[in-house]
Amino acid sequence: MDREERLEKIYDKALEMFVANGYDQTALSQIAKELGLTKAGLYHYFSSKEDLLFFVHERHMNRVFNPILEAAQKISDPEERIVYFIRNYTLKAMTRDASARVLVHETNNLKTENRQKITVLWRNGLDLIRNTLSEMEDQGKIEKINKNFAAFALLGMCSWTFYWFDYERQESGEELADTYVRVFLKGILKAS
Amino acid sequence: MDREERLEKIYDKALEMFVANGYDQTALSQIAKELGLTKAGLYHYFSSKEDLLFFVHERHMNRVFNPILEAAQKISDPEERIVYFIRNYTLKAMTRDASARVLVHETNNLKTENRQKITVLWRNGLDLIRNTLSEMEDQGKIEKINKNFAAFALLGMCSWTFYWFDYERQESGEELADTYVRVFLKGILKAS
Repeated sequence: MDREERLEKIYDKALEMFVANGYDQTALSQIAKELGLTKAGLYHYFSSKEDLLFFVHERHMNRVFNPILEAAQKISDPEERIVYFIRNYTLKAMTRDASARVLVHETNNLKTENRQKITVLWRNGLDLIRNTLSEMEDQGKIEKINKNFAAFALLGMCSWTFYWFDYERQESGEELADTYVRVFLKGILKAS
Repeated sequence: MDREERLEKIYDKALEMFVANGYDQTALSQIAKELGLTKAGLYHYFSSKEDLLFFVHERHMNRVFNPILEAAQKISDPEERIVYFIRNYTLKAMTRDASARVLVHETNNLKTENRQKITVLWRNGLDLIRNTLSEMEDQGKIEKINKNFAAFALLGMCSWTFYWFDYERQESGEELADTYVRVFLKGILKAS
């Protein structure tokens, strides 16, 4: 197994255990054991549990969040772009599993410099929405609104999902995403 | 000082210290010291830190959240009622200080039975919104929508505020509350 394969397995297992048992309740030694590594073997890659938490959060953004942003950015029509973002963020980053809940909560446990790096990644979502709202405004499609607050309203509506969503009922994700799309779009668009 | 005055002082000081320094970083002995009590004096009221956390969260709901719900319930027009709830929840429970951020985060640290009691209090907000949406539907005022998901969308939009709001800029709370009112109401109302 090469280094990258090993790191991917560590990411998968550590995230799975953080979600199942909580970050505080998961010891590095337990993660090592589940991976068939010695604790020293895991320390070869991560010098502390905080280091591992940062790695997992950053990789999660690369695996789940960034691809949604990149695909959205390729959509030229701003209204289609925002619909794509709401649907995919809700379905892939929120309702599929409880990873976001654990990772967002545990940002408190990151060192300041690592927390700042993670914040930058999340802020890219805010920028995408804000810029998209600006384009829609330029096209005369939306009501006059504070675009910063509206972008936070949208991200908040979607992100709060991890506090209450029943992950056993995956099938309700589609209707939930549709509800967010309808409420937000209708909430900002000029009546046609 | 009678028991109730003492409890109120403990509530104020403990919440202030949790918000300023974090729950994990605040020892019962520090809270006792700030209150001019011995640790044994504080243990007279609370048998554990978890016990104190539950007391603080429950009292915070009674001081801040429940009065908003009670005032809202007295408003007969459902549209006015929902506007009142959004404005007051945003301004009094979200933008005034970071109490909600700490208390919501630390529900993880409550015993199951205490967490369930707190969840019931928060769910009263969901019920208020859902019932209000039902009334608006009966009056033919809103589009057909999943009222449960719409209620969560509204609570999420408002509650997410504690993740990003700059508490030094209190004056922006009004515009934020107006933005939430406009996006959500326009998002659900039938075009007139």
